[in-house]
Amino acid sequence: HQLFRIGDDWYFLFVLGVLMAMISFTMDFTVSKLQKAHRWLYQELGDNTLLKYLSWIVYPISLTAFSTGFAQSISAQSGGSGLPELKIILTGVMMEEYLTMKNFGAKVVGMTCTLAAGSPIFLGKVGPFVHLSCMIATFLGKIRTCVSGDYENKNKQFEMLVAAAAVGVASVFGAPISGVLFSVEVVTSHFAVRNYWRGFFAATCGAFIFRLLAVFNSEQVTLTALFKTSFKIDFPFDIPETFYFIVLGVICGVITCAYLFCQRWFLGYIRRNRIIVKLMATDKAVYSALVALLVSSITFPLGLGQFMASRLTMKELLTSLFDNKTWFILSQNASLAKPPKVDPTNLWLEWWDPNFTIFGTLAFFLVMKFWMLILVTTMPMPAGYFMPVFVIGAAIGRIFGEVLAYLFPSGITSEGITTPISPGGYALAGAAAFSGAVTHTLSTSLLVFELTGQIAHILPVIITVLIANAIAQKCQPSFYDGSIIVKK
Amino acid sequence: HQLFRIGDDWYFLFVLGVLMAMISFTMDFTVSKLQKAHRWLYQELGDNTLLKYLSWIVYPISLTAFSTGFAQSISAQSGGSGLPELKIILTGVMMEEYLTMKNFGAKVVGMTCTLAAGSPIFLGKVGPFVHLSCMIATFLGKIRTCVSGDYENKNKQFEMLVAAAAVGVASVFGAPISGVLFSVEVVTSHFAVRNYWRGFFAATCGAFIFRLLAVFNSEQVTLTALFKTSFKIDFPFDIPETFYFIVLGVICGVITCAYLFCQRWFLGYIRRNRIIVKLMATDKAVYSALVALLVSSITFPLGLGQFMASRLTMKELLTSLFDNKTWFILSQNASLAKPPKVDPTNLWLEWWDPNFTIFGTLAFFLVMKFWMLILVTTMPMPAGYFMPVFVIGAAIGRIFGEVLAYLFPSGITSEGITTPISPGGYALAGAAAFSGAVTHTLSTSLLVFELTGQIAHILPVIITVLIANAIAQKCQPSFYDGSIIVKK
Repeated sequence: HQLFRIGDDWYFLFVLGVLMAMISFTMDFTVSKLQKAHRWLYQELGDNTLLKYLSWIVYPISLTAFSTGFAQSISAQSGGSGLPELKIILTGVMMEEYLTMKNFGAKVVGMTCTLAAGSPIFLGKVGPFVHLSCMIATFLGKIRTCVSGDYENKNKQFEMLVAAAAVGVASVFGAPISGVLFSVEVVTSHFAVRNYWRGFFAATCGAFIFRLLAVFNSEQVTLTALFKTSFKIDFPFDIPETFYFIVLGVICGVITCAYLFCQRWFLGYIRRNRIIVKLMATDKAVYSALVALLVSSITFPLGLGQFMASRLTMKELLTSLFDNKTWFILSQNASLAKPPKVDPTNLWLEWWDPNFTIFGTLAFFLVMKFWMLILVTTMPMPAGYFMPVFVIGAAIGRIFGEVLAYLFPSGITSEGITTPISPGGYALAGAAAFSGAVTHTLSTSLLVFELTGQIAHILPVIITVLIANAIAQKCQPSFYDGSIIVKK
Repeated sequence: HQLFRIGDDWYFLFVLGVLMAMISFTMDFTVSKLQKAHRWLYQELGDNTLLKYLSWIVYPISLTAFSTGFAQSISAQSGGSGLPELKIILTGVMMEEYLTMKNFGAKVVGMTCTLAAGSPIFLGKVGPFVHLSCMIATFLGKIRTCVSGDYENKNKQFEMLVAAAAVGVASVFGAPISGVLFSVEVVTSHFAVRNYWRGFFAATCGAFIFRLLAVFNSEQVTLTALFKTSFKIDFPFDIPETFYFIVLGVICGVITCAYLFCQRWFLGYIRRNRIIVKLMATDKAVYSALVALLVSSITFPLGLGQFMASRLTMKELLTSLFDNKTWFILSQNASLAKPPKVDPTNLWLEWWDPNFTIFGTLAFFLVMKFWMLILVTTMPMPAGYFMPVFVIGAAIGRIFGEVLAYLFPSGITSEGITTPISPGGYALAGAAAFSGAVTHTLSTSLLVFELTGQIAHILPVIITVLIANAIAQKCQPSFYDGSIIVKK
């Protein structure tokens, strides 16, 4: 297994990595501008609740309706994440239409709109980026065969698709190693070690350029992690806490089973329900708009939204949940008040409510997002389902950690040393465990470290992920397998 | 690919992980006591240089001679690391004698002696631990077939061997994820994703118990990394430094090619040289003793050893090289003096010399260890070759980083921000790149983070590893393949 066996492979992978990083960065940039515009509009409308409500719901409704309508009109295969289809393609089934450039265009535009609809819609971009990356790889492969005149064999094409899947993940999270592992776990069943470097190299190019663009755009001063945390590294957790990480693993596993079951049942239901089937056959955009109307009304920040931190974007949600501070301690300060607009240095205040307490808001967030996620995944537009699962997992871990901090205010004693519990560590473990269990992957345990730039919690996180996965794999097919089963 | 498909697999893997962790910990414990005794003896002998010299050389000579004689008398297959043979076994060739319990006993005792001989001999334990772990797995497999009465199929046995290899690495370094990846890269060519959890689970058990034992033994207060570093996490490196990381990758790649070529040539030479062949046929222990006499004489701390930090153990060498401080700056302090015995809080002082400067000692260390490592790897006793390569890589990176710190005393400017260069980051990258290139693996880029507990340097380290690997894989077969070629 030689590196650079075929001289031009690495040019190809380099171009793929750079292209995907640029697409990912441009999309993030556009989305953040669009979201800023929405936030500005919402702020400027002053005290008129009705106007505020309209400005809150019109944005997601119009964007999701456009995303659905546009993507579906160009290519019927552009909906959803694309990962289940990719999995089928890699078993050898030909589905050429899934990897065309037409589909690519539909998916890029659709994805930008989906993401710009923001946290009320609560969808991500990992799955579609894996799909986009595979489309670009197929396109580049065609160019290569044209230029070199060689016949492109199936084997080679599959090798490149696996590498492309790694690029997709890496250019979204800036996480090269877990990008490779996650894509291998999700899309393939057998893996040749000699292909390993391809994924590695391409993913590194993708992640490097993606992080570099953030520096050039003055968002950051140097190449750092996407969601940088500041946990204590000398004493991240105490040994008896391992027991609670195991309990968290069991909780995540059980919630995963419930979620996967409900998800599959609901996917089946909308294929049986006559009214929805009729609507889906003719007016997919209307269905999306109706769902968007429902979820955005519920998340309206002056209504129920105030109890579920709905003013935060997906990124802010995750940043706040991985916060190093203990919210329970912070919330005992009597002079707290909710700021009129989101305070970037105190994101946790969005989770605070004088009557509900942080436990109430976190629990309410979880209960509402649980069914809302199941609902929004049925929208027939380009969208990723990993990120929302990841955020929900972080919230599960955060509430668990905060409860522990409440039960053991001075920390758990071991060998005379007492250090307070850091709920952020549990949020990390919860995110890895829940997302890992839902997708039946273990590499999420590495992903959280590449995402946060700190690796001190490695052993408890892996244990949590293993336990949650054991329960989920025992009881339910994975999220991707589940949608394949339903579609059959 | 279900977890717990066969109910008893995970018991098996759990027992394997726990056993290997206990063996690894017990061996480390014994070795550290034996090395302390040696250091104490050396200190107590006072000013008599001859006595000191004798006490310095007798220890490694007798231990290596015993290790060779004992291991060879019990089992002729116990010499070396065992990784090349394992690689052959996993391609399907039957080599039953390599996985017997007799071999196990010979290897455990031999390894303890080899490691106790310390840094003059400069050998590690990774390879043999992978081998030991596979022997235990085979033994446990036999017990299982006896108890359950099932026929143990070859496939199952191979699956377990791959998992066992992961346990071997994980229980040496306390690094579960890179343990899995490293063992997959080194021992297999194809990998079934459904086996992934086996290696993951067993390696986590191994790493967890190994770290836990260190806490119970009061070596550490909580579960942390083996070689914990304290790099800046806000600004670990500047973007223009990426260029120097690339240069470091090229340097590591070139040195790797030189090393692998010399290594293979010398392995061939001792098989052709009549005197050595004769000696090896009858008195292997004498050969080991002669080599030990040579290398321990050269490393004598009152002789040449003072210019190559030879008073440090392997662990202390690595800890000192990963140091966050810049030695070049520290060494400009005029009132420095070499302490009479090793100062654990200022390990770097061992690298300092008033005439040679730190650059001189680092360069001398590298030149001497280069040929000494080639020499000691020919000793026919149980020994690992990963750790010495890793330490040499760290030294390459450290000298490169120190030169940079010398050239750019105030750091490399980018966008107006100037931060001093941290040579420890280059040591990290050098260790990963050199060890990765020598073994033709990419997962060393993850291993360094699991070892040090900090992941901020991830992008430059991966880039360095990729470049070093590209050069090495282009020009030379890997260390393990090289010894297979020579033995053919």
